[in-house]
Amino acid sequence: MSYTPFNAPILSGLLGDAELTPFFSVREDINAMVRFESACALCEGRHGLIPEDAATAIFAACKTFAPDLRSIGEATARDGVAVPELVRQLREHVGEPHAGYVHYRATSQDVVDTSFVLRMEDAIAVIEDRLKLVDTALHGLEKKNLGRSLMARTRMQPALPIAAEDRIRAWRAPITGHLATLDDVKTRLLVVQFGGPVGTLSGPSNDNAAFASDLAAELGLGRRDTCWHTDRSSIVAFANWLSLVTGSLGKFGRDIALMAQSGANDITLAGGGVSSAMPHKQNPVKAEVLVSLAHFNAVQVSGMHHAMVHEQERSGAAWTLEWMLMPPMVVATGAALRNSRSLIDDIEQIGGAAVSDGSQ
Amino acid sequence: MSYTPFNAPILSGLLGDAELTPFFSVREDINAMVRFESACALCEGRHGLIPEDAATAIFAACKTFAPDLRSIGEATARDGVAVPELVRQLREHVGEPHAGYVHYRATSQDVVDTSFVLRMEDAIAVIEDRLKLVDTALHGLEKKNLGRSLMARTRMQPALPIAAEDRIRAWRAPITGHLATLDDVKTRLLVVQFGGPVGTLSGPSNDNAAFASDLAAELGLGRRDTCWHTDRSSIVAFANWLSLVTGSLGKFGRDIALMAQSGANDITLAGGGVSSAMPHKQNPVKAEVLVSLAHFNAVQVSGMHHAMVHEQERSGAAWTLEWMLMPPMVVATGAALRNSRSLIDDIEQIGGAAVSDGSQ
Amino acid sequence: MSYTPFNAPILSGLLGDAELTPFFSVREDINAMVRFESACALCEGRHGLIPEDAATAIFAACKTFAPDLRSIGEATARDGVAVPELVRQLREHVGEPHAGYVHYRATSQDVVDTSFVLRMEDAIAVIEDRLKLVDTALHGLEKKNLGRSLMARTRMQPALPIAAEDRIRAWRAPITGHLATLDDVKTRLLVVQFGGPVGTLSGPSNDNAAFASDLAAELGLGRRDTCWHTDRSSIVAFANWLSLVTGSLGKFGRDIALMAQSGANDITLAGGGVSSAMPHKQNPVKAEVLVSLAHFNAVQVSGMHHAMVHEQERSGAAWTLEWMLMPPMVVATGAALRNSRSLIDDIEQIGGAAVSDGSQ
Amino acid sequence: MSYTPFNAPILSGLLGDAELTPFFSVREDINAMVRFESACALCEGRHGLIPEDAATAIFAACKTFAPDLRSIGEATARDGVAVPELVRQLREHVGEPHAGYVHYRATSQDVVDTSFVLRMEDAIAVIEDRLKLVDTALHGLEKKNLGRSLMARTRMQPALPIAAEDRIRAWRAPITGHLATLDDVKTRLLVVQFGGPVGTLSGPSNDNAAFASDLAAELGLGRRDTCWHTDRSSIVAFANWLSLVTGSLGKFGRDIALMAQSGANDITLAGGGVSSAMPHKQNPVKAEVLVSLAHFNAVQVSGMHHAMVHEQERSGAAWTLEWMLMPPMVVATGAALRNSRSLIDDIEQIGGAAVSDGSQ
Repeated sequence: MSYTPFNAPILSGLLGDAELTPFFSVREDINAMVRFESACALCEGRHGLIPEDAATAIFAACKTFAPDLRSIGEATARDGVAVPELVRQLREHVGEPHAGYVHYRATSQDVVDTSFVLRMEDAIAVIEDRLKLVDTALHGLEKKNLGRSLMARTRMQPALPIAAEDRIRAWRAPITGHLATLDDVKTRLLVVQFGGPVGTLSGPSNDNAAFASDLAAELGLGRRDTCWHTDRSSIVAFANWLSLVTGSLGKFGRDIALMAQSGANDITLAGGGVSSAMPHKQNPVKAEVLVSLAHFNAVQVSGMHHAMVHEQERSGAAWTLEWMLMPPMVVATGAALRNSRSLIDDIEQIGGAAVSDGSQ
Repeated sequence: MSYTPFNAPILSGLLGDAELTPFFSVREDINAMVRFESACALCEGRHGLIPEDAATAIFAACKTFAPDLRSIGEATARDGVAVPELVRQLREHVGEPHAGYVHYRATSQDVVDTSFVLRMEDAIAVIEDRLKLVDTALHGLEKKNLGRSLMARTRMQPALPIAAEDRIRAWRAPITGHLATLDDVKTRLLVVQFGGPVGTLSGPSNDNAAFASDLAAELGLGRRDTCWHTDRSSIVAFANWLSLVTGSLGKFGRDIALMAQSGANDITLAGGGVSSAMPHKQNPVKAEVLVSLAHFNAVQVSGMHHAMVHEQERSGAAWTLEWMLMPPMVVATGAALRNSRSLIDDIEQIGGAAVSDGSQ
Repeated sequence: MSYTPFNAPILSGLLGDAELTPFFSVREDINAMVRFESACALCEGRHGLIPEDAATAIFAACKTFAPDLRSIGEATARDGVAVPELVRQLREHVGEPHAGYVHYRATSQDVVDTSFVLRMEDAIAVIEDRLKLVDTALHGLEKKNLGRSLMARTRMQPALPIAAEDRIRAWRAPITGHLATLDDVKTRLLVVQFGGPVGTLSGPSNDNAAFASDLAAELGLGRRDTCWHTDRSSIVAFANWLSLVTGSLGKFGRDIALMAQSGANDITLAGGGVSSAMPHKQNPVKAEVLVSLAHFNAVQVSGMHHAMVHEQERSGAAWTLEWMLMPPMVVATGAALRNSRSLIDDIEQIGGAAVSDGSQ
Repeated sequence: MSYTPFNAPILSGLLGDAELTPFFSVREDINAMVRFESACALCEGRHGLIPEDAATAIFAACKTFAPDLRSIGEATARDGVAVPELVRQLREHVGEPHAGYVHYRATSQDVVDTSFVLRMEDAIAVIEDRLKLVDTALHGLEKKNLGRSLMARTRMQPALPIAAEDRIRAWRAPITGHLATLDDVKTRLLVVQFGGPVGTLSGPSNDNAAFASDLAAELGLGRRDTCWHTDRSSIVAFANWLSLVTGSLGKFGRDIALMAQSGANDITLAGGGVSSAMPHKQNPVKAEVLVSLAHFNAVQVSGMHHAMVHEQERSGAAWTLEWMLMPPMVVATGAALRNSRSLIDDIEQIGGAAVSDGSQ
């Protein structure tokens, strides 16, 4: 049991994700935060909210900024969020007379939420690619096993013979479905956060619409009329989607583990795990892990729903809870997709000869 | 602590829902099941799958069928599902020579899932109406308190003065958002289930497309090319949506409970609860209950995600878990909307006089 | 899907519990509440806290009190708790001049929590009896199948031959363990609640120790020096224990469902469920239901841990959440024990002939 | 949002734990695994199960063994567990003729579970020390504020005046209670795992009792008559206990956050967090984080209960889920205790002057 399964050297090959974990690294987080501050200054300059030369100076300084992570870490233990110390360092780096225009009108949550969204844009691209690969691989599996015979099982009992493709299609249909709903998830999630200290800067009651649109465009994100400081629906909907994906892959994994029990010719599977005590065994490790990851996300998603209950204009308690839950959920989803892809490749054959008499 | 909060005479006024609970009554469930069997026979007759006069006889018999609930209850304890005994009784009621065409080609899951969907169509209509009422009521609250002053609070600390409408809009925005996403939830959920014993009757590999379309139309439901026996995404997405709604209302409730603390003139609230020991108190009961119901659904939704991990062509274990989780989630959502509406009506005023100097 | 699985006529035979559900009925709840008020008056009279004749009058009146449930239900929707209206009715029934001494010094939470504890004492007795029966039945199963041979399976793969009793002992050991820890659960849980309006009446800072001991003795409960209004550890520990029991039974159920798959001679099982579409099937319904109930409690227990986060001297939100979660957990545990017992009875034989060569 | 909150350089100061995280490091895990293999060989030598010189050779080799972590990581992605490759490397290091006696009769789960238990013994010692410090600190807080006046609040409304020590005692009582139950948790958890490939080596049916006792003693652990491969009650009970601790601390945190709202003189608090936008603010960050950590563990504990549903003699899926859930729960508990201790130190004063007229 190494800490944590997701990034420790031992278990990360099984449960982690080398491509997705970096999106939650300090480096990428700070980079995205600085990207926000840079874009913010740039757009505020354009819209006359801060002096043009302040905007230019901040934009330039952001490119050469090297954060002192140790100080940020120490300050975060006190402030609950990295932004105050990051902004202090960035202001020092920008220097006078422009320092005061760094982070102008913005608040910590604008920076943190937008940083998350920016990184999720890239993470979702990775996930989407893998989901397509799994979808395609299942389609290939279907074609490869067309017409082969399998005993359907309901309530874990032999029911009636079906074709191998019937079961494979049942694995694939939800995957195709999740691909179809992903656009909506992205549209809702990939939205800039810009509300200012108390969340009022995005509302229709002010004349910031043009600025906000510009900022969103600069960052390649969408925008909404109201800031979502306390409306976490979009991030919870993202968590829901991640857990739906791992849930469907968990069903696939459970099926493979059941098919791989000896005693039925349901599947021929390569690549099983080695046992330390029984050399004859071939453990369906990837299939089992899919079940673990499905339940893992099903557990975490609950916390995201609890975290909707914010207080007033910002809840430190609810917001912090998100930070603990979302990174593992994203990585677990990536790991499930990677293991699924690999597991499909391990499947040499599903079902028996094409003609079946229904007995087994 | 009465059993259960949702339908016991004491707590149901607070946590239950007289309008939504009946959709989960045995009567409505059996009615919807029989409606499925009736439509199934009718359409199978039309499409030449069963004799026309068998279809006519079954359709007629369904109208006069009176189930023996006691026997169904006893059989369910053995069969895990009510359908086998229900079909046996219905066949007896239809009599020979047509009895054998009752439930023809269908399976228990077709009946149970479609019955759920049919009842949810009506339940969602109730929920949608209430969501609109809450949306409208919040809009009214906004207009009524326009320009009044309130101290914004972030991390539970006084931040900067805002207008009352700023906070009210933050309550309303997610509600409006949930209304906007409901159509998608309905399109996904309100789909007939018809897969037959092992789920293969809906697939593109058979020539049942016309029949299935007809059956869906007869029941006023949508259809999909693949049966969703083991792909529970649509029902889990419905659970997600319910929990998003109660989560947003929970945030509203928490805010009201915080505003109703004395010491700040954040709110004037009527209709509080009476204390058994302290006559001077006015407890913000409805606001608290919104928080309870939000956490309740946040707990349950986790189980729905776990229940995605079906085995093979049907998991009794996973399916049964849904039955325990969905009815309370629907009723809790109804109760949260009813309490929200009532709580908004109790709000006499939010914030202080229009001009504020930011002190409190 | 009938509302609710636990007490609806159809599913209750499977998922409900006719013996445990009544402990959560309004009748039993009110009876226990009145029992508290009666004992409270009696002891307060003895200790000179209220006049002797007031105590006598209240004690007598409690025996003839018939609550108006409708009014209590209506008031609960407003007050969030039944006690204020119940006390009002009880005072009316007692009449002057003693009415004012009803519920003297007590608060709603004293009544509600103590009522719960009083009823759980009886419910736990039922659960303990059943747990012992399951323990004994598993011991009998072990003796009946002594020396028979079974293929052990690790990670769902055939491993090495074991004796049937090896697996049966693995089912029984946690049951015996849960029996051993139950005494501690009872000692912690079965404690009177008496803190008064703000929870201070139980503390060592007042001279009520003698009264509190007497009240506890009168009700057959334990007592603690501090009131547990906001320390819900004991009730959460009870929930933990319930979920540990159903978790262990879920593991037993999962094993039976896996053993009942045809293809291996792991088990001979009677009493399976009937399929509506496939007459040849014998569904291991009770085994599946054990898995459902294990996951059900594993979901609910999370909510009980969330409900520990009370505010100040009493949280309506957290407390109300308990009311929604505990009754179903208790009933689900009862249903799991009943189904387990019945499932053990259905097992005709486990494993094959005594001598095994390890092949299958 | 850095990955993960528990060990990333930025958030770990707030949510991580520099003293507890190392127990989940690869180094400590491998060390404990090797310690198991070493003790196993030593005791097997003593009991004549393997040759004395093999035991001596293995014992010596374990002291000089340097694992190739890269290969272990790669193999784990295939095997689902690190042990097969670790044993292979260890055997290579021991060399012939004794290599074959490494890991003799043991199985992966013996090694992994015992390694976890060994490390938890030390982790619990850290947690226990901190719990005592928090208990003592709360006792000090009580003495420091003796007789000061505070307005009790029930259902978030002012109720009646209490003494500051009344509330402080309500924070402390559950902490003292958790200390009292910890011994039982330790007795249950700190038990060697030794069941062999299919869990039968610990049972009373074999003559290994003396060996098993010796192995347990060698490792400083307890033992049970039956192996706990599939009975995860003790580890789930540990998770329950952790979540009870954070739940009680979460209640304390919530209270402090509520008291720290301006407008009431409930508390004087130093050390608040800095806001990036509002320099006048002092955010009660540590108090909020206690609430986050309470909900975090309340979420995770659910997964541990789900993970009780093992299949047959070992479930890869259920076991792997534990690995993802336990390390964060332990670290979160450590972080909550550290933040609590620090938060108590920040409290300069609770309540107002000793005499109160009950108004506020």
